[in-house]
Amino acid sequence: MNFSRIAIIGIGLIGASFALALKRAGAVTEVIGIDADSFVLELAKRRGAIDRIGVMADVRDVDLVLLAIPVRQMGAAFVALRPHLSPHTVVMDAGSTKQDVITAARSALGGVMAQFVPAHPIAGRELHGPMAAEADLFVGKRVVIAMLPETHASATQRATAAWEACGARVVTMLPATHDAVFAAVSHLPHMLAFALVDELAARPNAKLLFEHAASGFRDFTRIASSSPEMWRDIALNNREALLNEIDRYTGRVKALRDALAAEDGDQLIALMRRAALARERWLSGELSHFQDEAR
Amino acid sequence: MNFSRIAIIGIGLIGASFALALKRAGAVTEVIGIDADSFVLELAKRRGAIDRIGVMADVRDVDLVLLAIPVRQMGAAFVALRPHLSPHTVVMDAGSTKQDVITAARSALGGVMAQFVPAHPIAGRELHGPMAAEADLFVGKRVVIAMLPETHASATQRATAAWEACGARVVTMLPATHDAVFAAVSHLPHMLAFALVDELAARPNAKLLFEHAASGFRDFTRIASSSPEMWRDIALNNREALLNEIDRYTGRVKALRDALAAEDGDQLIALMRRAALARERWLSGELSHFQDEAR
Repeated sequence: MNFSRIAIIGIGLIGASFALALKRAGAVTEVIGIDADSFVLELAKRRGAIDRIGVMADVRDVDLVLLAIPVRQMGAAFVALRPHLSPHTVVMDAGSTKQDVITAARSALGGVMAQFVPAHPIAGRELHGPMAAEADLFVGKRVVIAMLPETHASATQRATAAWEACGARVVTMLPATHDAVFAAVSHLPHMLAFALVDELAARPNAKLLFEHAASGFRDFTRIASSSPEMWRDIALNNREALLNEIDRYTGRVKALRDALAAEDGDQLIALMRRAALARERWLSGELSHFQDEAR
Repeated sequence: MNFSRIAIIGIGLIGASFALALKRAGAVTEVIGIDADSFVLELAKRRGAIDRIGVMADVRDVDLVLLAIPVRQMGAAFVALRPHLSPHTVVMDAGSTKQDVITAARSALGGVMAQFVPAHPIAGRELHGPMAAEADLFVGKRVVIAMLPETHASATQRATAAWEACGARVVTMLPATHDAVFAAVSHLPHMLAFALVDELAARPNAKLLFEHAASGFRDFTRIASSSPEMWRDIALNNREALLNEIDRYTGRVKALRDALAAEDGDQLIALMRRAALARERWLSGELSHFQDEAR
């Protein structure tokens, strides 16, 4: 599988890693970088992720365009892209939310929605920008492609081939399922980590606290070093599902709090044992132990 | 500095790592292991952490005895230890809470409290047991010694020398300050991680959720693989401080939730930026940026 030319709109961690991965696989001849930030474009070029700096009109000649920008910028990018789209160009996003991006795409791309593939690579680092990009960022990772009635099978196929060339495995999911799942396993933990660091940093004894924070705190809060702009967008664009997750989680914490207040050691250890066992099973890949309602 | 003989009561991760570290430093001639679990004792012997398996009465001849057991077992251990204590033996615990252990020590050790040093090594792994022990577990880590009016300076000095031989740096703190600080930076995150895994594992679509949990979730929940027994004890024994931390944290999450419900992107990104910046400063050791009330 080969692309002669692709364009990346938003050449940060994900966009630049995608470019580096395709280049390493020999799956692309030329990569055009498009970004509002000229400094980022220079970095991406120096990093070897893009061959040249382009503008929207350059999308005309490409086989694939990837939008790797914060999700609330997708709508404007689709609008800017539309006049320059050729019928053979696959349009793909890499956003962490899908229903919102699909709505924006439907509104802007209209009749060419058959060319649009909504994708979400489940890979990332807390670092951002093209200098943090890595050719093997997607190796062994999953990419969720959200299934749409409009998307032409050949577009999905080419998108899938691109991610597989990056070393990823593609799974498909309904857009609403995607957003509910990632609200729980990704968006919620990000909010919880941001909230913990912010809470402790606001304390009058913050210095003392951070002096004694150790590896457990470091790992728990790693995702609080993620891009605030990207995560504000994700939170706002997956608001309903995320509010639901926050409420359910808060309920669970309240149950733990009540058990602690009542000095109910049996209930505390039962919760902790369930959690430790579930995590052990997850890490061991023993997922058959988990409940699996009809999807 | 040399100990001719030490005893470790509870030869798990911390106890066995302490023994391995002192041995590697050439700071001890013989280590006696005491544990309720004979299998654990055999593992510790095989791991090279202890030279022989002992009983409480063997404490009679040792220079130092370390209690590295769950904090709610400390009281009974002090009582069992008391009749066998020689006047030259330093008694030290490695518990994650201090006021409770000190109360138990005062009750059981009475007149020999001058020999007692309450310590808390800020090191650990989510793995437990002697096979997870490492000679360098404490290298570059902090050990908090809680300051007591009763403890004789020579006992603190010998305890400090032992931890320094393990490669750690000793800091001192008032017991109440210790418990408040670690409720915030350690005990709270552990509870939050246990609660998240337990919440998701209870869902009817748990399998789907865990299939898509990735590295962010893995690091956020790493501490949910910690020992449930140890953490039930810590939670119960630092209950007041931990309840206070849960309430303050829940309040911060509620503020985030309210901002999200109101679609207040400015407030969301402000919180996220404060958190990301604070974490960056913490990781860079720029602690002078944090508030530092008179301690």
